Parts: sequence; structure tokens; C-alpha cells
Amino acid sequence: MPMINAYAAQSETSDLAPLDIARREPRPNDIAIDIEYCGVCHSDLHAARNDWGGTTYPIVPGHEIIGRISAVGSAVSRFKVGDRVGVGCMVDSCQSCSPCEQGLEQYCEKGMTGTYDSKLPDGSLTYGGYSKHVVVREEFVLRIPEGMDPAGAAPLLCAGITTYSPLRHWQVGPGKKVGIVGLGGLGHMGVKIAAAMGAEVTLFTTSPGKAEDARRLGASQVVISKERDQMKAVRGQFDLILNTVAAPHKLDPYLQALKLDGTMVMVGLPDEPHPPAGMGNLIMKRRSLAGSLIGGISETQEMLDFCAENKIVSDIEMIAMAEINTAYERMLKSDVKYRFVIDMATLG
Amino acid sequence: MPMINAYAAQSETSDLAPLDIARREPRPNDIAIDIEYCGVCHSDLHAARNDWGGTTYPIVPGHEIIGRISAVGSAVSRFKVGDRVGVGCMVDSCQSCSPCEQGLEQYCEKGMTGTYDSKLPDGSLTYGGYSKHVVVREEFVLRIPEGMDPAGAAPLLCAGITTYSPLRHWQVGPGKKVGIVGLGGLGHMGVKIAAAMGAEVTLFTTSPGKAEDARRLGASQVVISKERDQMKAVRGQFDLILNTVAAPHKLDPYLQALKLDGTMVMVGLPDEPHPPAGMGNLIMKRRSLAGSLIGGISETQEMLDFCAENKIVSDIEMIAMAEINTAYERMLKSDVKYRFVIDMATLG
Repeated sequence: MPMINAYAAQSETSDLAPLDIARREPRPNDIAIDIEYCGVCHSDLHAARNDWGGTTYPIVPGHEIIGRISAVGSAVSRFKVGDRVGVGCMVDSCQSCSPCEQGLEQYCEKGMTGTYDSKLPDGSLTYGGYSKHVVVREEFVLRIPEGMDPAGAAPLLCAGITTYSPLRHWQVGPGKKVGIVGLGGLGHMGVKIAAAMGAEVTLFTTSPGKAEDARRLGASQVVISKERDQMKAVRGQFDLILNTVAAPHKLDPYLQALKLDGTMVMVGLPDEPHPPAGMGNLIMKRRSLAGSLIGGISETQEMLDFCAENKIVSDIEMIAMAEINTAYERMLKSDVKYRFVIDMATLG
Repeated sequence: MPMINAYAAQSETSDLAPLDIARREPRPNDIAIDIEYCGVCHSDLHAARNDWGGTTYPIVPGHEIIGRISAVGSAVSRFKVGDRVGVGCMVDSCQSCSPCEQGLEQYCEKGMTGTYDSKLPDGSLTYGGYSKHVVVREEFVLRIPEGMDPAGAAPLLCAGITTYSPLRHWQVGPGKKVGIVGLGGLGHMGVKIAAAMGAEVTLFTTSPGKAEDARRLGASQVVISKERDQMKAVRGQFDLILNTVAAPHKLDPYLQALKLDGTMVMVGLPDEPHPPAGMGNLIMKRRSLAGSLIGGISETQEMLDFCAENKIVSDIEMIAMAEINTAYERMLKSDVKYRFVIDMATLG
């Protein structure tokens, strides 16, 4: 098996550092990709530091991968060498359960295989995109539309689809009032995508300093969520609230902001539980609190095409591979607008 | 104004006792009803004892009212003297907001007027069905189908509609797997109605002793919710879980019992919050936690007609008015199968 350069954490307390890893030779339905860019997701940091438990070391994070195809297996029909492609959070699933058959591989009943720190059917561990090269079965490879900025496209593969999928599933469009909670990697994509879908978008943030940016990204209203009066003023207004904040926080003020039959969708997994939500806020207007996990592969392609049509990519800050540990520290302070992307040419 | 006999609590610590109350003379769109039966709802007890705060005394509880029309106002067209009718949890609403126009008076934007301990537009307080007589505007009066047992019908007006409405809203029918949590006043109606809708019904209960009854009422499966193995065995199985238990309890084992895109609907308001639910259980299968409040007036009529067609009434234990305080104590111990109904002939 070819050995390639990567960046890995060797334990939950160690910084990421160079490591040589093995990638398999392409099988008939595999695609080999030379990685150009890889986005830096908050999950990368959580997994590297074992915040959720269960991390296997060494871990090579990275599931917002953009690159060019360097080789294709003999059975591959939809891609050719030189194509620019992407790989998101998944690299395999059973392909035969009911969710997989509906194109909802993220909810595969046998468990989807994550792009890193996950087990492939043959028992081998997956290593992610903080590396020069990756081999992925054709079904999990996305086509990057012509003309889309490849570095800005990388975060679409996690932050983009994680917000696009619930916005589509809960039928956001013209005439709908949508709230986005938090203006980070996910939130800034949520604002852009919901606005492009034609909804009236409100950003909820604790930081008054983010108001101007939110408007630039497509929000027509900004609510400072720490201000009780501002939260009170928007009670009963929203069809859908997409909550991208993983840090534990009170859900009730947001539930109260929903109209009759409104839904708040959570996409972030907190380390500690959110304070308990009041059932009265659900009962009194038949509201729902829901969750959503990334999106299926065909929906991810649909999202990429939608973003290309609407000239949407992520706002990014490009870093060199060696800057990843500093980037993690800055990410912990929300000091990034709005996603770090690693230029993989900087990894020797 | 005519004075009539009723039973009232004078403070949060006092027993219910006889009290003469005033009822208005019927206005043109009013219906005057001689009360035959009144169901005893857990909310009656909570309100009488000010468990939720905000009770105004004296309070006359009772919102599961069955009786015969004794007089109709000059503008009443749909009812006549002698008709058997019912009154549920509401006696008024604005009739012009968007929810009211959709027949969802329970979600009236100006707040519906409850059958007791609530304010009418003219500022007067409402007194409920623990009384000989009530006057209600025509729009909030339900027709009791011919041949339906009137005492058994009383609990349909709260327990019945509170379970019927979410079962209909979340589209329960043949091919759907439905869980009902708790076999009390609400739960036993939920089992009967969901089974009559054609669903495959599972009862979740902490009491193994209720299994036989649950099967008699229409459940095809009983899961003892204290038994971890039993809860584990039903993971990922249910389209809808209707949770009728108001006492604080862990929601996660029930969320885990839902399939992809499944919903758990809460209809009980706990005094203290339930322990916080894990967002992962929502995210990993795009599940929802929702709430639902009684049902609209036209839907309540639909429910009564559905119950008549399917020969469904509540299982009741008839009591005399003077037994109400003992009944409350027994209700606190869940010692009733499954709803007390007051025979109003026993109130002098």
C-alpha cells in the first residue's frame, strides 16, 4: 500500500504533527484523489481531543475534502482522471437498508462509515483529509461544479450540507421566516443558503459585532439573543429555526420564537446537555424540536449545484498545514471568519 | 343572573365544597345546558390546588361536560332544546385570528377562554362543569352522537380529543407503529383511538399489572419501560410515540424507540421539567420532540363521530359529587380505571 504524508494526533493531549499513513490501491469502484484543500470543522477538533469519547489514535481528521482525480478503478463510469471532486463526512454505508435506498446514507441502519476515525467494512480505519491523497468508493464522491472556487467549496461538504439538508427537508422558501442561531462555520452557511432559497432570514447571535456581517451574508434582521426584549419582540414569528450552536444554552427563548407548528432543528451536539426545554413551549403552539445530521450523497450533490447556481461558497481563511494547531486554538475562541481551509500544497 | 349549585375550591389548600354560583342569561348565540355528567381531569386537581400558579378562587373545575339543552338563544340555529351536547376545555376564542380561522381555537393568538378559571371577553370568570347548569356560546358546543353512552362520552371532551388530535395530525393509520406512554385517562383513550385508526399499538408502562388491560383496550404489545432490555429491544421501531405522562421522566429511551423521521408528542405538562433530552437522539435519526394541546372544535366533533362509529367511549368509574375529594386523592395514586365521572344528579 502506498504511504502518503498526513497530519495526525497521536493522543487526546498531543498536537497534530506529520505522520506517514497507508492508503489502499484503488479497487474497481474506487477513485483516488490528490487533495488540494481540506476544510477545518469543529468536529475535527472534538474528535482529535476525544471530547466525545471513542477516538482511535492516531487520528487524521478532515472531512471537507476537495481535490483532483489521479486514478479511477476499472468499474468507475461517472468520473475520469483530472475531474475536480469532493468528499464529505462519509465514505461508505451498507447501500441496501431503507435509509440508504432513499439516499439517506447518513442514517444508514448499519451505521455509515465516517471519513475519519471510522471502520470500513474490511475492518481498516479511515483517515481523513489532512493528507495529500485519499481513495474513496465512487458512490461517495461529489462532483464540484465548473467555476466554483475550490477552497471555498471545501466547507460546503460538511457545513454546507448540514445546513442545506434541514432547510430543504423543512421546506424553506419564499414566504417563510427562518431564524439561524449562531454565526460560525455552519451558521454563516445557513444564512447564505436560506436567503438564496428565498426565505426571510434572521440571525440570532450573542455578538452585536456580527450584525453587519450577517446582513452582508443575507440576513434581513439580527436579534441579539442575550437581550430579553429583543427575544420577546420576535415571539411566535418563525416557521423554522436552525440552531447551529453546540455549546449548552437555553432552548426555550428560541422555542417561543416559533409560530404555530414551527420547528427548531438542532445540528450541533453539545458536550454537556442543554438545560431542559419547557414542554409548555412545545404544547402551546404544537411546536417541534428536531435534529438533523449532515445530508445524503445525492442531496449533497444537489446542494453543490444549488450553491454554484447561486454563487455561494464559504467565507474562508486559508492556512498552511503546519498552522493547524494554532487554528484549533483560534477556532475554540470563534476567531475565524468563517472557516479555516488548509492549502494542502503546504504539506510536503 | 340565576344562581345554581356547584362545587368549588376556595383556596389551594381547601377541599372542594358546595357553592352557589351565578350563570348568565343566554344571549342570542348562547346555549343553556343542564349538566348530566362531568369527567374529572387531572388538570382539575392541578388548577384547584394552584399547582401551576395563577388560579383565581373560588374555582369550579370540570371541562368534560355532558348534558341536555334547556334553552337556546334567538340566533342559535344548529341546536334545539332537548339535544344532548358536550362542552370541552374551551368556551370562547377570538374567532378571527389565523389559528381560529383554521379551526384551531386552542391555539387562538389572543388566547382561548378555558371552561373554568379563565376570563371571558366581558371580564367575567368562567366556572366549569362541577355544577348543575352551564351557558356556552353555540360555537363551542359539541353534538353527542345518538346512542353514545353519555357518561362514557364525557372524558372524550378532554382526554379523547387530546389524544385524537395528535394521532390525526401526525397521520396515524394502517401500517404505522404507534407507542402510547402511560395508561391513565389520556393513555387509555390513546390506545383505543390509535388502534381504531388501524395502527399497530404498543403501550409503554411502568406497571406490569396493566399489560392485560392494555391488550383488552387494543394494544398488540406492552413494553415495561423500567426494563432496559425491553426498551432496547424496541429501538428504532416507532413512527409516533404519544407521551401522556406528565410526571418528570427520562425522554431519551423513548426518543431512541423512534425510527428515522419519527416524532414523540408530549401532551402532559410536568410540574418540574423532564431531565434534558440528548440532542444526539434527535440528530442521529432526524427525530422530533413535539407538543400538542387538546384539539379544535371541529376536530372535537370529528373525534366524537369517529368514536361513535368505532363504539369507543372512556372506561369510567362513576362517582357522586360529594365524593370528589376522595376521588382526587385516588387520582393522585393513579387508582382509577380510567376516568372518574361525576353523576350530576347527585348534586342537589
